[in-house]
Amino acid sequence: MPPSTHVHSTPAPRRSPSRRAAAPWLLTIALVAGSAAAQQSSPIDVVLFIGDGVDDHQLTIARDYLAGSGGSFSFDRLPHRAQARVRTVLEDDPSLPEYVADSASSGTALATGRLTSRARIATSAGDDTDIPTILEIAHRAGRRTGLVTTASVTDATPACFAAHVSLRFCEGPDDMRGARGGTLAGCLADLRSAGGAGSIAEQLVASGADLLLGGGAAPFGQRAEDGERVLDKAIAAGYRLVVDAEGLARAPREGKLLGLFGPSTLPVEWIGEGGARALPLTRDESGELVAPEPFSCVDNPRLGTRPTLEAMTVAALEHLESSAGQGFFLMVESASIDKQAHVANPCGEIGETRALDRAVQAALAYQERHPRTLILVTSDHGHAGQILPWPSLTVSFGFAGSSAQHPPGKVARLRTPEGGVLTVGYGTNVGALEEHTGTTVPVLASGPGAERVAGLIDQTEVFAVVRDALGLDPVSGAKGENE
Amino acid sequence: MPPSTHVHSTPAPRRSPSRRAAAPWLLTIALVAGSAAAQQSSPIDVVLFIGDGVDDHQLTIARDYLAGSGGSFSFDRLPHRAQARVRTVLEDDPSLPEYVADSASSGTALATGRLTSRARIATSAGDDTDIPTILEIAHRAGRRTGLVTTASVTDATPACFAAHVSLRFCEGPDDMRGARGGTLAGCLADLRSAGGAGSIAEQLVASGADLLLGGGAAPFGQRAEDGERVLDKAIAAGYRLVVDAEGLARAPREGKLLGLFGPSTLPVEWIGEGGARALPLTRDESGELVAPEPFSCVDNPRLGTRPTLEAMTVAALEHLESSAGQGFFLMVESASIDKQAHVANPCGEIGETRALDRAVQAALAYQERHPRTLILVTSDHGHAGQILPWPSLTVSFGFAGSSAQHPPGKVARLRTPEGGVLTVGYGTNVGALEEHTGTTVPVLASGPGAERVAGLIDQTEVFAVVRDALGLDPVSGAKGENE
Repeated sequence: MPPSTHVHSTPAPRRSPSRRAAAPWLLTIALVAGSAAAQQSSPIDVVLFIGDGVDDHQLTIARDYLAGSGGSFSFDRLPHRAQARVRTVLEDDPSLPEYVADSASSGTALATGRLTSRARIATSAGDDTDIPTILEIAHRAGRRTGLVTTASVTDATPACFAAHVSLRFCEGPDDMRGARGGTLAGCLADLRSAGGAGSIAEQLVASGADLLLGGGAAPFGQRAEDGERVLDKAIAAGYRLVVDAEGLARAPREGKLLGLFGPSTLPVEWIGEGGARALPLTRDESGELVAPEPFSCVDNPRLGTRPTLEAMTVAALEHLESSAGQGFFLMVESASIDKQAHVANPCGEIGETRALDRAVQAALAYQERHPRTLILVTSDHGHAGQILPWPSLTVSFGFAGSSAQHPPGKVARLRTPEGGVLTVGYGTNVGALEEHTGTTVPVLASGPGAERVAGLIDQTEVFAVVRDALGLDPVSGAKGENE
Repeated sequence: MPPSTHVHSTPAPRRSPSRRAAAPWLLTIALVAGSAAAQQSSPIDVVLFIGDGVDDHQLTIARDYLAGSGGSFSFDRLPHRAQARVRTVLEDDPSLPEYVADSASSGTALATGRLTSRARIATSAGDDTDIPTILEIAHRAGRRTGLVTTASVTDATPACFAAHVSLRFCEGPDDMRGARGGTLAGCLADLRSAGGAGSIAEQLVASGADLLLGGGAAPFGQRAEDGERVLDKAIAAGYRLVVDAEGLARAPREGKLLGLFGPSTLPVEWIGEGGARALPLTRDESGELVAPEPFSCVDNPRLGTRPTLEAMTVAALEHLESSAGQGFFLMVESASIDKQAHVANPCGEIGETRALDRAVQAALAYQERHPRTLILVTSDHGHAGQILPWPSLTVSFGFAGSSAQHPPGKVARLRTPEGGVLTVGYGTNVGALEEHTGTTVPVLASGPGAERVAGLIDQTEVFAVVRDALGLDPVSGAKGENE
């Protein structure tokens, strides 16, 4: 230690270790003060995981299969837990509630702290005003930022963090022409020729995000109104492109990184044996109900060269860590839990929940090395799948025969590794796509600021927890990138 | 202060208030020590609320209607929250899991801390051994005990706390003859003539519980094998009988109290306008889907002279408090949330959740006056109801016409007080009775010992939290009343 540092030290004699031991509260006070000082100076890294469509019921389906009825996921063991209300408003009258969200309205709540109507990406219901996102606020304050997803990076959830359009389907320039949805006028007002900021893909490139990993080669391959491909705009803006797991592993940890590992949604990790999924029940020739044959979940042979969500998360953490001491915001989405629930595919759901669990484990390992990391794990909205008795409780208690006692929707029976049979029903739509549901969703948290995750909260509170953990000023950060 | 107390004081001069203020940690230590001493000496009152069939989805249905999409129930604001796995095992091979519980198997987990198979009341799967319940252990240790329910007091949930039979349907002596269920042999082994403890009603009378309030006049009116009515046995055992709200309000607070306010399940508080409930969808003459007409929930005109769950809870707290300083265990069940979900009646569910909320408020008011009260609010298993989009998301995004996009099950649309329309679907059984589901359920807690309610737990942990809060020895309390 150079002598000059002694000039500012106190003139009191150094305390001996025994003297310290005799006054433990003084040590405690010193430690607390030291920790408070660290809190002031050392920036926080924030990793926000979103399991798309993961309510407690979808989690239980996956947990029963993967960990057993007495098991738990890594995120089940995080020390702080809340339940979040999923709130959406009507486009025609934003003072009124809509009781079922989509990933756009609920993603906007998580990313901006504001409620909106379905299909909107970080814009307000009714008056279509851009709302600043946590990624934009963090970027403007000098933090590193990244988005990771198993969907297209232009899909609703990641889009809500770095783009502003009235309709989630405005993913690429070509997608904007003629796209319409619900009560929204479509994408026309967001065209650059109309003074807008362009498609979601164009806005992601302009957002300044340091890292974008997922699917989405298709919208990035589309040509913007000036004739240039969005991908070429990304490269001109300094993004290095990687297209497979090997390229991701080899990518340098500096600069901006764009990973497009497939045209849109990436292939899922698991499928049912022989492609089995939930189907409407059938009857045999004598009119008797046919019990669905139990099956197991197996690896998807068509996974291809895409990296896993875990590999993307590890790469993202290494990439954002490269500017150590700066603090970062990273959003990681396991997107296909929702998409597989829509198509009544329980093995798809379960495999993607396993992917989420492994990605969270990677973040927990990062947190071990960087204790000033806040990890949040939540969902955007509920989904259709339910664990059902088979046969019906009425039948198993002997009150009725089985022929008129069965679920009205699609049913799958899974042979679980622990030796049980798990019956999963989807009873929300007779059509091809099952529906989102309006339940509350879990929020789990670990790290600095996690203690605010408690009780019953709104999803908008997740935005506030992240903002405050990053030390961002709610006022000065209130002007969005695209306003 | 008498001089003799100074003998054990320190010889140091008394500290002035200002000197105390200068050493705040000494005061803190003194306060902590005082609180620890109080913890040793003062017995704890425990109130365990069970909302039958109340998972987070059923709670959200009721919350959206009663408190609005941004509202909360009294129990939502309790400081501690966990999610509980609902675990059941197979009767034929108790080493294997059953993924959907009934109120008997999950009630046994809550009441005894042990897993069992469906339909069993505080007996073990496979070998049919009686398992001591928390009520029996508390009673043997000199604590006051009580059971309150809106079902028959002989129904599965209350039965699990004070009876031991292999089949939940053995409610009264007559019910035992010929009753069979699933893989269980029925009630024959539990007949007194076979050396058993008799029906659930008979066992409740013999349990020593200080208070039993609910429905159940029918099984109590049945004659036991010795020709005596169970009700007469109860009166002979010292129970005072009350049969309506007025009688309950006038009942003396000493001695044993039996309230039988109806033959079996009590009438629910709310119904749908004009008796409206969820029904299968229909089509008009041109084949177009008919959107169900939204309706509101109204008071049930057939409530009769029964006390509300809140009134029963208040009476129970006053009754058990009469032996102040002794500590008590009280279980309060809102039973018909489950029963109304079975018959696809959302207003029934919502009204009974409102009843639960009001009963919890009464306990919180008691806790204000008696801070050494542990309040737990949980559920036994999940249920069928789901909040669905109407029309289908597919339709509202313009991807499909409405005729082939609708729920396959029963649907009700509720006009909510906040001005929205809440669509509730039941899609678990084409028959008359909807099914239980296999999701985790919430556990909420406040008071001494509540801090153990955190993270992901098993329902059996609720038993352990109550036992430890009551200061009961797990070993000495291990022999049940009916063993």
